[in-house]
Amino acid sequence: MPIARALLSVSDKSGLLDFAKGLAELGVELLSTGGTAKHLKDAGLKVTDVSEYTGFPEMFDGRVKTLHPKVHGGLLQRRDNDEDKRNASKHSIPCIDLVIVNLYPFEQTVAKKDVTLEEAIENIDIGGPSMLRSASKNHRWVTVICDPSDYGKVLAEMKENNGDTTLATRERLACKVFQRTSSYDAAIASFLNKEQVTQKTFSVSLPLHSELRYGDNPHQRTALYGNFGDYFTQLHGKDLSYTNVLDIQAAAGLIHEFRRPTVAILKHTNPCGVGCAEEDLREAWTKAFETDKQAPFGGVIVINRSMPLGLAKIISEIFTDVIIAPDFDADARALLQKKKNLRLIQMLPGVTEALSQPIIRSAPGGLMVMDSDPRALGLEDLESKVKTKRPPTREEIEAMRFAWRVVKHVKSNAIVFASHDRTLGIGAGQMSRVDSCRIAVWKAKEAGLSLAGSVVASDAMFPFADGLIACAEAGATAAIQPGGSMRDEEVITAADERKMAMIFTGHRHFLH
Amino acid sequence: MPIARALLSVSDKSGLLDFAKGLAELGVELLSTGGTAKHLKDAGLKVTDVSEYTGFPEMFDGRVKTLHPKVHGGLLQRRDNDEDKRNASKHSIPCIDLVIVNLYPFEQTVAKKDVTLEEAIENIDIGGPSMLRSASKNHRWVTVICDPSDYGKVLAEMKENNGDTTLATRERLACKVFQRTSSYDAAIASFLNKEQVTQKTFSVSLPLHSELRYGDNPHQRTALYGNFGDYFTQLHGKDLSYTNVLDIQAAAGLIHEFRRPTVAILKHTNPCGVGCAEEDLREAWTKAFETDKQAPFGGVIVINRSMPLGLAKIISEIFTDVIIAPDFDADARALLQKKKNLRLIQMLPGVTEALSQPIIRSAPGGLMVMDSDPRALGLEDLESKVKTKRPPTREEIEAMRFAWRVVKHVKSNAIVFASHDRTLGIGAGQMSRVDSCRIAVWKAKEAGLSLAGSVVASDAMFPFADGLIACAEAGATAAIQPGGSMRDEEVITAADERKMAMIFTGHRHFLH
Repeated sequence: MPIARALLSVSDKSGLLDFAKGLAELGVELLSTGGTAKHLKDAGLKVTDVSEYTGFPEMFDGRVKTLHPKVHGGLLQRRDNDEDKRNASKHSIPCIDLVIVNLYPFEQTVAKKDVTLEEAIENIDIGGPSMLRSASKNHRWVTVICDPSDYGKVLAEMKENNGDTTLATRERLACKVFQRTSSYDAAIASFLNKEQVTQKTFSVSLPLHSELRYGDNPHQRTALYGNFGDYFTQLHGKDLSYTNVLDIQAAAGLIHEFRRPTVAILKHTNPCGVGCAEEDLREAWTKAFETDKQAPFGGVIVINRSMPLGLAKIISEIFTDVIIAPDFDADARALLQKKKNLRLIQMLPGVTEALSQPIIRSAPGGLMVMDSDPRALGLEDLESKVKTKRPPTREEIEAMRFAWRVVKHVKSNAIVFASHDRTLGIGAGQMSRVDSCRIAVWKAKEAGLSLAGSVVASDAMFPFADGLIACAEAGATAAIQPGGSMRDEEVITAADERKMAMIFTGHRHFLH
Repeated sequence: MPIARALLSVSDKSGLLDFAKGLAELGVELLSTGGTAKHLKDAGLKVTDVSEYTGFPEMFDGRVKTLHPKVHGGLLQRRDNDEDKRNASKHSIPCIDLVIVNLYPFEQTVAKKDVTLEEAIENIDIGGPSMLRSASKNHRWVTVICDPSDYGKVLAEMKENNGDTTLATRERLACKVFQRTSSYDAAIASFLNKEQVTQKTFSVSLPLHSELRYGDNPHQRTALYGNFGDYFTQLHGKDLSYTNVLDIQAAAGLIHEFRRPTVAILKHTNPCGVGCAEEDLREAWTKAFETDKQAPFGGVIVINRSMPLGLAKIISEIFTDVIIAPDFDADARALLQKKKNLRLIQMLPGVTEALSQPIIRSAPGGLMVMDSDPRALGLEDLESKVKTKRPPTREEIEAMRFAWRVVKHVKSNAIVFASHDRTLGIGAGQMSRVDSCRIAVWKAKEAGLSLAGSVVASDAMFPFADGLIACAEAGATAAIQPGGSMRDEEVITAADERKMAMIFTGHRHFLH
């Protein structure tokens, strides 16, 4: 049966006129409301107002327009049910076969700065979701469009199909509606929930951004949902995999700790080396790279300035998987793009917003939602947090700040040796803290870097003195750590005996 | 202003009568539909049918009952707007101040085996969500209840508050509605989506299981959502934290690789040691513990048999954070419960289901959904996958199977030395594979375990020969790894030169 009657009520009017004209040419009767009706009439189309159709005026500033049995009966009646047909005929409720609705822009409204509660609430659409849901429930007969990008497809199908759509199309469109209404109400709940203390349900509904190349492994399909594109743009290279996205996230978090020109090299989300410079990124690169010249093979490089040609030339000498920068100078980009597979990722200005979003992670039977850990904590007023007899020197303080910012981004248990502008040795991901200390010492030694006069940072407390002693023996003269062990006194004594300066930040930075 | 008029239309009638009686006693006029109205009238309450109220009959088998301007105008009119008041008076639309609605049981319907599409679709509620949403939008004046557990609280508040509710309560209830409608439509979308090829939206809506003790760190609040309780029961001890849940998940995944009586000790989600026995878990414990006697301090122990008293006695000697077992013998449990903080977790039979669920993880601006990696791959027909001149012995094959199952659960880059029933050295979480090899060798040496005649497993290919050579020099006579490096030939040659046997599984098991 060809579509005879369509109801149009949209907030986003893009593409609507062409579609409505196409429908009119196919002989479809058009019903519409308020602004949509005016828009169509102004273009010369013949349109029946819904208020005229229902015999009931729009009222309460448009809050009640389509919530009427003639509209919903028109959508919900079953075309193969004799009793339904009798009722429809008795109460003059003709079938409505096609619904074109998109919703008041709630999400855009609340994304605005300084939005008022009243404005947000006025943008909660009531009639729209009701029509979409009625039509979707009855998709065996009714076609429903909530996304302007479907106009062309539906019109083409109607033209090829004697004015009707196929059941497969109607199913697809109905499914899309429930995704949309779910996501719409999740946004409303999330907005209203801000002032609520506990959240009894976690709801999220995110559009597909892309299917990823693969997951942890090639046999694991993976998809990325959400607005990744608002924060990162891939300029060049192979498609991203799950591990690439994890690396990009980790790299962005790390580089955002630093203001000075900084280079960080990462592998498996762990930093292999970090260096800062006063001006020249090449100097920062050298410091980062010298920490570990082997691990960066196939790794990730992130910088916090536009990529200059000078650095691009150096980087292009080694095999890298991903390069992330706020921008790429044209000549640098041209050079790097000669490598077909190398992924170039532009980090957009809003990325700090993404870094402060809650962290979501699978748990058996569901998931966990955790506050983000956006910036290194406990670095204010370090002088007041000294636990040892000897206070740190000015240089040691600077090195502590640097090391603490890096260690926060190393998988637990994490140990970082550093000076004020570079890593010297990194011990990552060990089950025992003292092992991370030994690894960091050994890595520094292998890299030919002296730890004499260095500072050591530990992401969580030293539970025993052994780890601290290992660091002191390697040459560290100062330590920064959260404190909080039952054996803190032993650790402080060990530091004092070795003339070390030690600070307790009072904040732990585990990362799993 | 006291609540004057309530509309009741529920699918779940539990608690309704008491609530309705309470409302009637407060002088509230009751409007209701179909089955709900009958239920209330049968109990002697005075109820007005909505069809009588609107002057429009229920039709289409109840598909259209409340979708009427008199209902929605009654909900949506603004009580402080003169124009709204004039309209309401002119069209005889009195205010409805309280809505009690719960939805057709869509989720329960589609959870049934052999549910038909028709049955599922009939259980998509249209009128209910519309009323809930109208009332919620206008929560400045209207009270809305979608959950019977709120009846008592609302009634008590009305009694204390001259028949009205507070704005704070109305806000809380409105927020709950949008969570419910979002979750309801997510369930519908997910059901309809089954027959769609690609998922264009990821939607999930999960109930709160519990607020966790804390996240990665004490300053990060964390909540657990979903049905964790279907898979694990906490029998004793301190509340779980985020890292505990991650550890429990990792421990369950690891132990499910093994059939024989097995003990695994984990820290920061990485295994520190794994041992199997023919019969006695104490023997398995000894093998696991000998791999690393230091790291288990504050760690996680998982076993795959009921916890016997003999093992409980041994374990209670060391400081452990979490013990996981399919069950605990009564005497063992009594002993372990003497430690107030020690968490005892029972792993329920259905846990394999949880392990095969997709993995969800944050990404900038959204999240990633990845197929699970549920069991070690590539272990069938190992004889056909030999790449070296010398084939592995029977003992080496057994040790390869063991090592491969363990290495899959170690954070990348991962190296595991093992015999057929125990780990000998584990190298975890390094940025360079050769470093993981060295760490594993060094850990074995520290533990006083000989690697002579051992087998080594690598979670991903050896990119160069250096890592394999380091393992051979430590005593490994056989290696299992995915293969796939551009330099596979060099690696095979290095193995042949050292008379090693090597197998390529063809599958990588990265874990990030």
